[in-house]
Formats: sequence, C-alpha cells, structure tokens
Amino acid sequence: MTGNMKYDVVVIGAGHAGVEAGLASARKGLKTLMLTINLDNIAFMPCNPSVGGPAKGIVVREVDALGGQMAKVIDKTHIQMRMLNTGKGPAVRALRAQADKTLYQQEMKRVLEDEPNLDILQGMVDEIIVEDDVVKGVKTNIGTIYDAGAVIVTTGTFLRGEIILGDLKYSSGPNHQMPSVPLADQLKQLGFDIVRFKTGTPPRVNSDSIDYSKTEIQPGDDVPRAFSFETTEFIMDQLPCWLTYTSENTHQIINDNLHLSAMYSGNIVGTGPRYCPSIEDKIVRFNDKPRHQIFLEPEGRGTKEVYVQGLSTSMPENVQREMLASVPGLENARMMRSGYAIEYDALVPTQLWPSLETKKIENLFTAGQINGTSGYEEAAGQGLLAGVNAAAKLLGEEPLILSRSDAYIGVLIDDLVTKGTNEPYRLLTSRAEHRLLLRHDNADLRLTEKGHEIGLIGDARYDAFLVKKQNIEAEIDRLKNVRIKPNEKAQSVIESRGGTLLKDGILAFDLLKRPEMDYESIMEILEEDIMISKEEYEQVEIQTKYDGYIAKSLAQVEKMKRMEKKKIPADIDYDAVHSLATEALDKLKKVKPLDIAQASRISGVNPADVSILLVYIEQGNIKRVNA
Amino acid sequence: MTGNMKYDVVVIGAGHAGVEAGLASARKGLKTLMLTINLDNIAFMPCNPSVGGPAKGIVVREVDALGGQMAKVIDKTHIQMRMLNTGKGPAVRALRAQADKTLYQQEMKRVLEDEPNLDILQGMVDEIIVEDDVVKGVKTNIGTIYDAGAVIVTTGTFLRGEIILGDLKYSSGPNHQMPSVPLADQLKQLGFDIVRFKTGTPPRVNSDSIDYSKTEIQPGDDVPRAFSFETTEFIMDQLPCWLTYTSENTHQIINDNLHLSAMYSGNIVGTGPRYCPSIEDKIVRFNDKPRHQIFLEPEGRGTKEVYVQGLSTSMPENVQREMLASVPGLENARMMRSGYAIEYDALVPTQLWPSLETKKIENLFTAGQINGTSGYEEAAGQGLLAGVNAAAKLLGEEPLILSRSDAYIGVLIDDLVTKGTNEPYRLLTSRAEHRLLLRHDNADLRLTEKGHEIGLIGDARYDAFLVKKQNIEAEIDRLKNVRIKPNEKAQSVIESRGGTLLKDGILAFDLLKRPEMDYESIMEILEEDIMISKEEYEQVEIQTKYDGYIAKSLAQVEKMKRMEKKKIPADIDYDAVHSLATEALDKLKKVKPLDIAQASRISGVNPADVSILLVYIEQGNIKRVNA
Repeated sequence: MTGNMKYDVVVIGAGHAGVEAGLASARKGLKTLMLTINLDNIAFMPCNPSVGGPAKGIVVREVDALGGQMAKVIDKTHIQMRMLNTGKGPAVRALRAQADKTLYQQEMKRVLEDEPNLDILQGMVDEIIVEDDVVKGVKTNIGTIYDAGAVIVTTGTFLRGEIILGDLKYSSGPNHQMPSVPLADQLKQLGFDIVRFKTGTPPRVNSDSIDYSKTEIQPGDDVPRAFSFETTEFIMDQLPCWLTYTSENTHQIINDNLHLSAMYSGNIVGTGPRYCPSIEDKIVRFNDKPRHQIFLEPEGRGTKEVYVQGLSTSMPENVQREMLASVPGLENARMMRSGYAIEYDALVPTQLWPSLETKKIENLFTAGQINGTSGYEEAAGQGLLAGVNAAAKLLGEEPLILSRSDAYIGVLIDDLVTKGTNEPYRLLTSRAEHRLLLRHDNADLRLTEKGHEIGLIGDARYDAFLVKKQNIEAEIDRLKNVRIKPNEKAQSVIESRGGTLLKDGILAFDLLKRPEMDYESIMEILEEDIMISKEEYEQVEIQTKYDGYIAKSLAQVEKMKRMEKKKIPADIDYDAVHSLATEALDKLKKVKPLDIAQASRISGVNPADVSILLVYIEQGNIKRVNA
Repeated sequence: MTGNMKYDVVVIGAGHAGVEAGLASARKGLKTLMLTINLDNIAFMPCNPSVGGPAKGIVVREVDALGGQMAKVIDKTHIQMRMLNTGKGPAVRALRAQADKTLYQQEMKRVLEDEPNLDILQGMVDEIIVEDDVVKGVKTNIGTIYDAGAVIVTTGTFLRGEIILGDLKYSSGPNHQMPSVPLADQLKQLGFDIVRFKTGTPPRVNSDSIDYSKTEIQPGDDVPRAFSFETTEFIMDQLPCWLTYTSENTHQIINDNLHLSAMYSGNIVGTGPRYCPSIEDKIVRFNDKPRHQIFLEPEGRGTKEVYVQGLSTSMPENVQREMLASVPGLENARMMRSGYAIEYDALVPTQLWPSLETKKIENLFTAGQINGTSGYEEAAGQGLLAGVNAAAKLLGEEPLILSRSDAYIGVLIDDLVTKGTNEPYRLLTSRAEHRLLLRHDNADLRLTEKGHEIGLIGDARYDAFLVKKQNIEAEIDRLKNVRIKPNEKAQSVIESRGGTLLKDGILAFDLLKRPEMDYESIMEILEEDIMISKEEYEQVEIQTKYDGYIAKSLAQVEKMKRMEKKKIPADIDYDAVHSLATEALDKLKKVKPLDIAQASRISGVNPADVSILLVYIEQGNIKRVNA
C-alpha cells in the first residue's frame, strides 16, 4: 500500500456526537472514517438509560427533521415512551424515552455499518496532524496515519478521563476503558484553552433485589408516540419505571460520610453540572429538603440492571451500599456497578465558530462533551451540525448555522460559542427566548426545508413534508373563511364541550381558539369528514389556538433578524472602534462574533457597546487589521 | 456498614471460565461474588465467533452434563450449527456453532443476574488477600475489600496484557480495556512460577464490502441439533459462512513484510498456540503450501462485522489491509478491526492440584487462560470444575476430579497439572487415549450421575436421565435376546439396505452390528413400533456397533484404574525413595502426583521410576517428611 489512507472527513469517537457527525458527513457524500477505541461501545450510554425530556426531547426531533439518526434509533429500541407536560402548553411538551441500552447500541452500529460512504474502525487517535494551522489528518496509537480534509473530535469523557471515588482518583475512561491522554496533551500544545469538567453517575442494582412494593409505579403512555417524523411502527409493550425517595437515614449517612466524599478531598478540580448534581451536592445545597426523588429505571429488556436515577455519587463504594440500603425498596439491593464521578478535558467553546469549527485550526471541528456540554441529545445535535459543516466546508458550501429562533440546537450552539460555559452545559427550556416557536410538534415545519437543502432529507420525505405543510396552511386558511352560524348543531356541540353558546355567527378559526374546542368538534359542527391526518390537524389546532402568541414571537424574531443582518467583517480591528468598554473590547476580540446579534449576546458586551459597534459598521469605516 | 462484605467464594473475571465458576459455586449454595472490570463484557468472545469443534464441542456437552451453562447459552444464540465428521466414527464427531457474539453475552449476563446466590459487580481486583498461605479475600482497585473463603482467578488475557502489532507493544487488554497489572505483580510476589503466553486474532471486515461470488458458501446443517441435553427449541434460521483462500499475492506480501512482523522485532516474548498460529507463522513454517483456508464468519445477526478466520496476524495495520485485499472476495474489504497479538501472564499449571486449587495458596483456585490454555471451551470446563471444587472445599466435600476416561475435561486438567504446557494448550481429539469412550453422544451417560452428586443436576433432570439410561440398557439387553429368523420380511429389509441375506437366524444385536443396518431397520424386521426416543436408539446403535472397541477401551481403563488405586501419600519423602532417576525425583517433588497413574504421566518420569515408586509404596515403608 503506497501512502496513507485518504478520507475527506475523520471523526474521532463514536458516541452520540460522533455517530451523528459521521453519518451526516457520509450522507453528504464525503468519504468518512469514524475511529473509536472500542467498536462494541458505539452509541454507548454510560449514564442514564433515557433519551429526551424537556428541551432535550425537542432536540431529538430537530435532529430527525434535519436528517439525523437518534430519533429513529430510540424509536426502535425504547422500553417506555412518555410525553411530558401534556397538561401544559405545547411549548413545554417534550417526549422522553427509556432506552434499552444494548439494543440502542446494536441498532446504531448497524446503521453505521450500512452507510456506504462511512468506514468504522476500531482505533485510538493520539494525534491530529496539523500543518500551518490547517488539519491534515490523524495518527493512531499504533502509528497508522489517515489523511483527512477535516477532522471532527467527539471524545466525550475520554479526554484525559479520570475516575473519582471518595479520596481516590485514577486515570480511566468509563468501565475501565483506556482514557485518551496523548490527544489531550496535543490539544493543549496546539494552544487551546482547556477547562476541566466533571460528571457523575449513580449505582446500578439488580432488579431481583428491589422491593417494588415500597415504590410507586411509573408506566409509559398508552398512546403510541415516536421521536422521528418518519416512524410508523410503534412499540406497544412498555416496561414501567418506579419512583422512590431518599430517607432521613440516607441524608444522615451522607452527612456522616461527607469527610470521605470527593468534594472534600480536594480531588475534584473539574466543575460539575449544576442541573445534574450528585446526591451529596443536593443534600449539602438543599439541606432543608427532607427527601429527594429516586427513579428506578430498567437498563433494558434483556438485563436486570436497574439505574438508580437521582443517586449520582462519588462516595466510596461501601458508603454507596449504605446509601442504597437506606432508600425504601432498596433495603436489600444488590449493587452491580457503583457510582463514580469522572473528570475530563473540554475546550472553552468560545474558541469555536458557530459552525463548530475551531477558530484556531482550520477544518478542525468539535462536538459534544469536548465543547462543554452534557447530555446525549446535546451531543447528537452538535454532532449532526459538525458533520454537516465539516462536509460543507470541504464542498465549498455555506455552513448550516441555526438561529436561536430556528431550533434548540441553535440556542445551544449560540450559547456555547458566544457565552462559553462555566460548567457542563445542559439545555433547558428556559434558555430559549423563543420557546413558543421551538416546539416539539413543529420541529419538522421548522427544519425539514433546511434538512433538504443540506442534502440529508431525501426528495420523497421532502415531498411528503410539503404536502403536510400545505394541508395545514390550507386548512387554517379555510377555517379563517368559514363562518359558523349559531344553529342547533353548533350550539349542541358547543354545549357538549361545556362552552358558552354562540350569540352571533363566528369564524371557525375563532371558534377553534376557544380552550374547550378542538378540531374534531369544529368538523362535527361543520358536518364534514376529517380529510387531513391527525398530525396535521393537531398542528392546525396549535397554530390557531396560539396564533397571537406565535405572531408576537415571530415579530420579536423579525426585529432580531434585522439586527442580525448587520454582519461584522471577520477582519474588523476592534482596537480602532473608539469608546468600547474595556471588557467589551476584550470579549469581542476573543469571541469574534459574526454579527451584531451574536455580539449583543456576549456577556460583558452591553447595549451601549452594541450601539457603538453598529454605528461604526454602518459608517463603513472599517479599518482592516491586515490592511 | 461495619466491616467488609463477606462471601464464600469470589470469582475474579467473567469470561468463559469465570461465568461457569461463579454459577457452579452459587448453584452449590455458596454466596458467591463475581468481579469483572466491565459488566458489558461478560462472556465476551474476543476472538472467533464460534463454540465447539473437534474435542472442544465434546467439552461443551460435558459442561452441560455436569450442570454448566455454556451449552444452553450457545443453543439459544447461535447463527449456525454443524455436526462435524458425520462421515467418520462417533468418537470424532463434534458439534460446532457459529455464535451471535452480542446475543451470547446478553443471554449469559441474564443467566448470571437470575442466579440468587450470585452477585455480579463491576470491579477490578488488585490484590488477593492471603494470610499464612490461605486465601482470605480480595481487594479492588478502589480499595473495597471482600472477605472470601475461596477465590477463583479467571483473568484470561488481562493479566499484564500487552498488545503487539508489528514493532509496537503496549500495555492493554483487548479493545483498549485496561489490563490487570497489580494482580499480576502480586501473583509473582506470592512466588508463583509465571510464564508469558501469547495469542492472536485476525482482522474483522464489513460484510457489505465482501464479494461473496468469489467464495464458497458453507451452510449450517438442515438437521436441528443442540449442545445441551435439555434443549428442546432449535434455531432453524441459520446464516452461512463463506470459504476463500489466501493467494500467492498474500504470501508475497507477508514475505515482503516479514521484517516488520512482531516475530522478527523481538517484541514477542510469549509463546503462541501451535494449533492456532498466525498467518505469518503458517507461511514461514509451511512455505511450500500454496494457499491456506480463510473462513468468513459473521459475528452475529445484528452486525455486519465478519471475522476473517485463518488470517490471525500481528502485522502492522496497513500490511493487514494489503493482506486482506490479496484474498479473493476481499479485494475491496473495509477493515473494521485490525488483527493483533496479545501477551499475558499465565501460571505454570503444574503448580495446581487436580482440583485446580493452587498448591501454594490454600483455597486459591485458577481456571482458563491463566492456567495456560486457549479456547472458550477449555476455559468453561476448567471454570466449572474450579467453581465446584472451591465450593466443595468450603463445604468439606470431596473434590470433583474427572479421570482421563471420564471426560475430555479430565484429560485437559490432568495434562495441565501433570505435564504442564509450553504453549497455550488446546484440546485435541488426539490428546485423549480413550477417545472412543469420550464421545459427543454419551456425555450425559458419562457425567450426569456426577453432576447430580455434586448438586448441579436437579432431581427432575436426573430422573429423566435415569429413564433414558434404563431404556437404552433394556433395549440392548432385549436385542441380545431376540433372534431374527431368515424369513421373507427380514430378507427383504436386509436386501433393501444392500446387505447380505441371512443364511441362519441371528441375534438382533448382532444383525445391528452390520454397517448397513440401523435400529429402524431392525424394528422393521421385527414389525414393532419404535417405543424409545431417537436419542435413545441412536445410543443403542452406537453401543451395539462399537461394542467390541468399547469393551476393549473399558478394559484398558480398568487396568489403568487398578494402578490409579495406588495412592501416593501426600507427605511422601521422595528423597527416601532410592534409585529414582534425578529428573524423575525433581519432577515428582515438583508435581506431587496424587497417585501412580498421575506419576506415570509426568514427562521425565519413566516406567522404571514408576516401578520403583510402586514397590516403595507397596512395601509400606513410607518415611513421612515431617515424621
């Protein structure tokens, strides 16, 4: 064999970021290599056996609408599916699935194996080959070099991974896999700002040793649901989870042993995720709270391992046993894996362009935990974008950059590259200012068009989507033009729904806005057969009922967009912009925002600074740095 | 929690030896803990995706007859089953299954999880706690101590594992799992003689990249078969394997790159398995052979990974790619894992009693690759015996020691503890001197009784077995007493089978001995319905047809047994036995054989020495060492 193997894109890692990155790049037609240190750990879930939840579940829908894989795989391999917040407005609804971890991995591995442009290979990357600040390839620990046009790093917790348990700390990835140390060293040498983050996981116990009679059952939904807009087969046989609580005794045990905890040993350098704290963190921070929820979640259909959600801990192993035994239902629990904390290297994400390319090294992209996030879904969303954008860069296409009003993925990436993060970043509904627009139900309406443009949504799916969109719009238009008279039929239907009787005629559209009315009741009044799908008329309902709020949100977005149109030239010399506050000047030089909107979201850049910057740009008196 | 967790038996490792050891100990009623560095790797097959084959397949049957698990799990999770050597005599017949690796692991893990007396826990043992040369427990790498009455070490290739590839060598278990180094250090410190062994594995490729039209299909059997005597459900949907060959070009590539191979780098200290050599070994050793067989074996139903059987290699990765491309059908093969060699520590197995307890440390047992063997089946057989015997020791029962005429497992363990081994030991039909007795078909007749005695075969199974045994014996007795006359019916049936017509009457038993006759034809002549099961009458056929050979073998065994009866006192002072050859004296003192038969099989102990020893013992003039 003469010379190195050549690929367009090399993806380092095959976790939830890596698999989406590899698939996206390959599906855009680029010859892609995915390297993972253990082929049996593809799409492995080292922590909770679940996908989705508030905000995160919407990301999974967005990944699907853009042509990614996570939604389809979890749809095939879950043991339970629940729609959360069904009693609340559509903006906060989200789907959550309990995963069969092993089946999830197997299914994702098979999808990768089926992808013609994607090679998956077991191998550990020790070095990214860089020449003149441009990526040229990677080198593995056994000395093989793969030439590459672009490299996407998705190393999860493996980058200088260290397990922490009580006063112990040792170099390791999860499950005694080797950590990635030489690559971590190299990223430092390349000059990247590195932070040390931490995450943790709870113990697992054997289901046979749980006394479920002391817990509350948490069944899945009866209604079949799916993450993917393309899923047509639903898993009806669902397994329940179980709810229990910590006891006073649990809290006593933790307090008694706090001196043994990693947080007091000084072992933990890294910052943990605020929204996913260890139980010892929770007990110290909220010491007035008498108990905390503990969910017992099966790790799959074929195993008796049960994940003890809520009991994430890095206490010594024997203390963990005592903690378990103090929880109702777990008195005799047989532990199968102990919890632990893991520390790892992450890049300060303000070093990234919104395309997830690093500013420092051209054609080097990063996604997932290395960018400071936590969560499988956050990883998948970034992986997809990094894969698309690495391919786009090599193909000479515009990068796919999602705005904060396009998608939660847009919020996530904009937060990361603009504000950075001081702790493992988790998506929350509250992070999105346009959350009424970023709904579970409309992810396809928001993103299928873009998915088709970037080449990840095929024509058949796109055509079907256009029909759906057209049906929804046409039906809303129609309802705006149909007047319902206060006749006997109308009054009786309205009465049966507990509504106020009509005095005058009313537009069907306006009648549908009433909280008690739904599309089916309108059609009953009109004595018409329903001619559109359930998904379509649910969309008609939501868009009608929330019409005013949605219009208001869209107006805000429009205003933002006008500002966003003001691009900041890449080579602007901020030192030449007079009157900027020192902090703003520093931050602007560091973050290098692409436009005014991004500049305005940088912490430390105040409205006054934005105005100065706007005026400076509009006056056209840009002084180029290298001019 | 006050004090350490206490177990009767702790098993270190959960490979094919560990799982049988843990199950056997737990099923004998002892509180058992199994520790493994990765709970997701239970019963992992790091090498070929198959179970069984010559001699090894018979071991799997023996494991089943003794109440072990391997047979039942492979029966549920194979993708193909074949009976080998069906055209040859029953002594060499053996079953071989292609495994679905992932399903095999999942099924075995579930069985372990279901076992009430067995706790399985992720953890890496760094130290065996020993006091006054007696095992007291183990300590893990995170400092947890488990008290134990007995410990069984089944560390496979992890004990000071080092991966070798070309001129590279680095510390690692398979798939970038951490190796077990502190435990290896401790075993040395305890004074055990350690050898360095090596094994290797070939690359895996993506099925989609294979041109199967250039290969020969190797389907499974149409007849449903199973390893376990209890299996009643058979997998009918089988996947084929494929046969291809190395080409001249393959040999050229290997020869051209021999200077890059590990065997020339001096990197390999360990001795490899003679009967499972790397392709570079084969080409150097048999350089006149124009080609070697390559079997393409799917690694499961849910994956496209294909194992390239026959191409085991530790050549550099890019040379492996060239080698693959030179094999017909693999011209465009996309490699998913490269082959490698792995070196590991093993104990010189003459340091073991036939119970697999170490002579040096009481209640410390070892099984599998640490005892110098290779192969999943050899590991399983030893694991079962080690589990039974560790439990027996604590229960004050006699150890289960299988003789060379009882079982292949007996041959295996006797070879190991008596002769030792200079290379990874593999069972071969030729290693058994009584192989006509150690058949695939009669493993239950040989061993179910013992399985019941040790408590691993329940009463229901045992009762069913006794009925089967009784039916076979009664039917053979009956055939010995039924005389067939040369009447029209008899002659026509014999003629239809192509046999020589009868001249006189003949015993049904003697007529059945004729090669062309089978049990069904005898019953046809007798005009009787078949009242016993197929398994039973196949046994009637085999025992009848091979009656003379079997009788001869049994006579040899009886003669051996008379010798075996001569026990050698444990405290014999060999220095007091005059006239022993120096080598014999040394070996006898080292091996400490239990009886004359074992002494006679020690290499270096000649018949003359055995006679001297016999005389010495028979004269009763034993001078005790400590007398």
